[in-house]
Amino acid sequence: MLGSTHGTLTTDSRRARVIACGEQPGPAVHGRPADVDDLDVSGRPLYAGVPDLDRFFRPESVAVIGASDAEGRPNTGITRQLMAWAGRVGARLHPVHPTRTTVFDVPCFPSVTDLPEQVDLAVVLVADPLPVIEQLAEAKVKFAVAFASGFAETGEAGALAQAQLAAAVGRSGLRLLGPNTNLNAFENFREDLEGPAIALITQSGHQGRPVFALQELGIRLSHWAPTGNEADLETADFISYFAERPEVGAIACYVEGLKDGRSFLLAADRAARRKVPVVAVKVGRTETGARTAASHTGKLTGADTVVDAAMRQYGVIRVDGLDELQDTAALLARAKPPVAEGVVVCSISGGTGAHFADLASEAGLHLPQLSTGKQSELHEWIPPYLSVANPVDNGGHPVGDWRGRKIIDAILDDPEVGVLVCPITGPFPPLSDKLVEDLVAAAEQTDKLVCVVWGSPVGTEPAYRERLLGSSRVATFRTVGNCITALHAYFSHHRFVRAYHSPFDEAPRTVSPSFRKAEALMRPGQQLSEHAAKQLLRAYGIRVPREQLVTSAAAAVRAAGLVGYPVVMKASGAQIAHKTELGLVKVGLTSASQVRDAYRELTDIARYEDVTLDGVLVCQMVERGVEMVVGVTQDELFGPTVTVGLGGVLVEVLRDAAVRVPPFGEEAARDMLGELRGRPLLDGVRGRPPADLDALVEVILRVQRMALELGDVLSELDINPLMVLPRGQGAVALDALAVCR
Amino acid sequence: MLGSTHGTLTTDSRRARVIACGEQPGPAVHGRPADVDDLDVSGRPLYAGVPDLDRFFRPESVAVIGASDAEGRPNTGITRQLMAWAGRVGARLHPVHPTRTTVFDVPCFPSVTDLPEQVDLAVVLVADPLPVIEQLAEAKVKFAVAFASGFAETGEAGALAQAQLAAAVGRSGLRLLGPNTNLNAFENFREDLEGPAIALITQSGHQGRPVFALQELGIRLSHWAPTGNEADLETADFISYFAERPEVGAIACYVEGLKDGRSFLLAADRAARRKVPVVAVKVGRTETGARTAASHTGKLTGADTVVDAAMRQYGVIRVDGLDELQDTAALLARAKPPVAEGVVVCSISGGTGAHFADLASEAGLHLPQLSTGKQSELHEWIPPYLSVANPVDNGGHPVGDWRGRKIIDAILDDPEVGVLVCPITGPFPPLSDKLVEDLVAAAEQTDKLVCVVWGSPVGTEPAYRERLLGSSRVATFRTVGNCITALHAYFSHHRFVRAYHSPFDEAPRTVSPSFRKAEALMRPGQQLSEHAAKQLLRAYGIRVPREQLVTSAAAAVRAAGLVGYPVVMKASGAQIAHKTELGLVKVGLTSASQVRDAYRELTDIARYEDVTLDGVLVCQMVERGVEMVVGVTQDELFGPTVTVGLGGVLVEVLRDAAVRVPPFGEEAARDMLGELRGRPLLDGVRGRPPADLDALVEVILRVQRMALELGDVLSELDINPLMVLPRGQGAVALDALAVCR
Repeated sequence: MLGSTHGTLTTDSRRARVIACGEQPGPAVHGRPADVDDLDVSGRPLYAGVPDLDRFFRPESVAVIGASDAEGRPNTGITRQLMAWAGRVGARLHPVHPTRTTVFDVPCFPSVTDLPEQVDLAVVLVADPLPVIEQLAEAKVKFAVAFASGFAETGEAGALAQAQLAAAVGRSGLRLLGPNTNLNAFENFREDLEGPAIALITQSGHQGRPVFALQELGIRLSHWAPTGNEADLETADFISYFAERPEVGAIACYVEGLKDGRSFLLAADRAARRKVPVVAVKVGRTETGARTAASHTGKLTGADTVVDAAMRQYGVIRVDGLDELQDTAALLARAKPPVAEGVVVCSISGGTGAHFADLASEAGLHLPQLSTGKQSELHEWIPPYLSVANPVDNGGHPVGDWRGRKIIDAILDDPEVGVLVCPITGPFPPLSDKLVEDLVAAAEQTDKLVCVVWGSPVGTEPAYRERLLGSSRVATFRTVGNCITALHAYFSHHRFVRAYHSPFDEAPRTVSPSFRKAEALMRPGQQLSEHAAKQLLRAYGIRVPREQLVTSAAAAVRAAGLVGYPVVMKASGAQIAHKTELGLVKVGLTSASQVRDAYRELTDIARYEDVTLDGVLVCQMVERGVEMVVGVTQDELFGPTVTVGLGGVLVEVLRDAAVRVPPFGEEAARDMLGELRGRPLLDGVRGRPPADLDALVEVILRVQRMALELGDVLSELDINPLMVLPRGQGAVALDALAVCR
Repeated sequence: MLGSTHGTLTTDSRRARVIACGEQPGPAVHGRPADVDDLDVSGRPLYAGVPDLDRFFRPESVAVIGASDAEGRPNTGITRQLMAWAGRVGARLHPVHPTRTTVFDVPCFPSVTDLPEQVDLAVVLVADPLPVIEQLAEAKVKFAVAFASGFAETGEAGALAQAQLAAAVGRSGLRLLGPNTNLNAFENFREDLEGPAIALITQSGHQGRPVFALQELGIRLSHWAPTGNEADLETADFISYFAERPEVGAIACYVEGLKDGRSFLLAADRAARRKVPVVAVKVGRTETGARTAASHTGKLTGADTVVDAAMRQYGVIRVDGLDELQDTAALLARAKPPVAEGVVVCSISGGTGAHFADLASEAGLHLPQLSTGKQSELHEWIPPYLSVANPVDNGGHPVGDWRGRKIIDAILDDPEVGVLVCPITGPFPPLSDKLVEDLVAAAEQTDKLVCVVWGSPVGTEPAYRERLLGSSRVATFRTVGNCITALHAYFSHHRFVRAYHSPFDEAPRTVSPSFRKAEALMRPGQQLSEHAAKQLLRAYGIRVPREQLVTSAAAAVRAAGLVGYPVVMKASGAQIAHKTELGLVKVGLTSASQVRDAYRELTDIARYEDVTLDGVLVCQMVERGVEMVVGVTQDELFGPTVTVGLGGVLVEVLRDAAVRVPPFGEEAARDMLGELRGRPLLDGVRGRPPADLDALVEVILRVQRMALELGDVLSELDINPLMVLPRGQGAVALDALAVCR
């Protein structure tokens, strides 16, 4: 549901929404200040600031509310860990407890108001954080973390308590992480690792653990934000913050639900502008998963197809498994942009090369055939009977001596090659140790990407653990599947950010002249008649057939004369559904007498079915074209969305449709058509002419405008069918369903 | 291509084929003897014996032809390994070399004919094995292995040499592994591991290496057959042999191409009857992969959709990655059949449970909601605010003490539960070590399957390496994805073998009465006219519309009167393609004058387009029904295949079709319909009546019969459209294309 505004849209109601879904007013925002006038025509923000979280992750002083050193209390362990962390990051730590004088020999203060200095961060370990928040605000604490659980994740009462907490935080001026979060932000990060880092955001501490453990494989992690219930700070805030940090090479997220769709998209937009990859596992592929996730974090999961589309619109790379999250984020964080799209596979076995090439081609990677010149060069070191076109089958022996490095360098030297992949399916130290040495050395001296798939399931081999994991220049994978997934993401990400134009920059901010006309047609809570729905389309410049609404047989005959035979006649009335099934549509009427009969029959059926009509539509018959469906539906996370699909059985039976979250531009509208499996129908099959794609795209964009301008008053729009005529002849909405809020 | 037989089918040509695609005559076959009369109506074998390979894998005496102990020669290393292996398996080894007297201090013989005993196995290390084969035959050697490369994998000349080698082997009475193979069969297998083993078959040594390395993770391997070029022994022979071995729990295959489709299916059939799972990576998903694989092994890859269908028909589990091959084969080898289909996930984090449940449900696993009784029981040990419906969120602490085992046992005790999965995403030794102990102990005491996903990317943790890998009762995975893939295969395999009836048992062996009628209609090398093609269908009892072939306008009018208005008229002639596009079809003719005009127009167009007609068809018009396509195409590996798809744009644009390799039964024909994305059209959408599925299935089976009986003379058949009328009214072939060989 899109807020609680019903009825006609007012400027005030649009303004009101930005408070709900924009960021909290507060002190800790840098970059361009939030501007409540910076809204699109639907009243949604076009801009979100970046919270300044420097003092959250690297505070100078920390208070621990509810600190303990009593043996056996859970807070004791937490306090101990926080003290160790404060020591590492050089922060002064002040325990707070009503009765203790010291905690682990550090002076303890009875309450927040007694603290010896203004602290950056308060870690709240008490069961009810609400009363503490006001004290923290008084003490001008910048950040608080609330560990307590029992909020939105437990049901309605908990959700109410969380709303109260959020309101208190909103009034306080501080920023809160949690409730229902943990110590992950204050883990022991390795400081000895180099290169761009992964910043991690998770809605479950346990699920972030393997990404954090990547440090043990030599991959640098800079931050971990365990967002918990997100009463205040949410995933989007951390994406925005991390996207601005120079040490962050990629952002890895584990997301169960989103607090707000728009804030997520604005954060993803910031990351896309900054060319920082965001890789995410998002639970909710299935009903089961969505339900379970909701019960775990108390958040919305949204329709998964919409989540998927929204992520793709902003270049967020969605993966399924935590292993894919690790491998993809690690590659994207550390690899330089590709200098070419070609992937070359080089292996000591023709079988390995064939297998990799098969799976890689299926995934859409580009495996160019090497030039004959390059092949001759490779054959200087590789026996002539082995194929070196790509895959390069080196036969094994050559990589065991001085030829190995020559082969690697010759491949990397090819201008078509952006990535060299060496799958080492089984280690055979005399060959593979030498190969690994050569790969590590070559990777140090090239801007191109060198990948190794270490296929042994054992994983204790020194060549793997010491040499490969010891190199930050070689991307090492354990499975061919994950290597291909990561490479696909690597090329996609760099293509995406190179071409990226933020749709927010061009989103409409003011209502179109169509809006006033459309507003007058709205009937709150009702389904409009076909006639009214078509007037709505006409208001937005979408073509409908020549047609007249008549209320007598004689008028029907006159209308048919004006519209031109053959005609279609349809009962028109609010709340009519399933017209065809009820027999309320008559097609191909060619004479006055047929029109008269049809009029009588339609009104008879309507009477019999107890359907109220506003009249009978006499419409021009439009036959030659491709039937499409274009519509607007409301998503609980993202608000109005625009869908296009192929009409008839294709959309009904095969659900062959594409969806986008506004705002989106013309190119995105055109891309939607490319996603349709039935797309060839638009290009013309069986000798039919190609359809007017430009007209179809124009309709999609006009429907988007309706979705944005009327989102608060129009809950559903369905043009079905939209007849797309041959190229140059336009598109006509033959029927439409519109439901007002 | 299906052999080289063209023209009408003779019993001789059918007999001839069994020699080509059945097994070699030879001494080493046990089980029912091969019977050349045991053929289906297409002349393909219905039975394949099992080669007795006991003395291949466990010979008592071995000769090494080309043995060497000279420093630096490749054969020296091989000889050394063979001697070590012979020592381990207790075989007497005899080096053979023309000039040496001893090799590694073992007496050496100048030639095979000088061997001191009749040997079981000869390993041929010389560059040209052909002359050796005849000597081996004379010496009554049972098995030979040829390492030499340079055969079919190198091109035409090599293929010829391989054919000569195969012919020599065929005459010899021995069985040959190779050429172009290696030492893998004679590796050092661990003897200390228990339980059912994996038997491995690979067409690339390197690609088998990670499966072999599973022994280092505690998983038993019994055999490895590196089949090389398969001049004689092929993948199918080893599948058959392994399926009969009591120690083999699962067969893992890496396949690049198949030597013969039918022999592979007969072997898979044997494994299915014996309930032995076969898990396979088969390269060739893409053109690139197929081409590369072919150049690697010189084998056929076949159309991938057909390979896929054939594997599914016989329960072969196809996976993509070697990691999936390892994990799936290991699970299927070791796990007992499921006692229930329910999968319960239990984790220390609600997030982990939600994530697993999401991916598992998407993959089609059954995650039942636990009964309220069971939930209450679990809440004895798990705090009440955690959800235990499934996923079971145990909250962490309970699994760190005595409650952990209670929780595990309570879940395993539920009759709906067949599998318990514990994803341990991040190790936290105080909890996870205890949990692992409990899981290992519980798994020892249950017939149900206990799975752990050890999600840490590090993999050196003692709980993983020592406890989990040390247990043959817990199935341990490293990724959620592979666990789900393997569980899906586990349930599918057991469902499949429980319900399995071999289609070979019911395959037709003798021609039907239709055959003689059909044979007379064949025109070698030609495309039949529509009229002739429909006569062919009628011969096999497939309904066609009432229609007459006429050669004058007057006859057309008379025919229309007999057929009944409205009629369709079509030009009929051999070699006509694209009738509709050429304007050679007129529909909905309602009067004699329209019929006369249509006749004139059709013959005019035919003259203009220079198309020879055998006449004009005047046909009954059949409109109400679902348009389907049913056809026969030839696959290079599997011979004739039967395809069914939804007609019109669905099959043309979306390629929504299902394929089966004959022989298959009625149930398989019905299953084909279930594979169609557009299937709901057959069940009736938009208020249309359900289609006559029984009639459609009957047509599929009759077309299969045609494919089997006419496979040698009919290269292609395409009924398009087959109009499937409402239930009880049958199905009518409105048009058909038949091309003779």
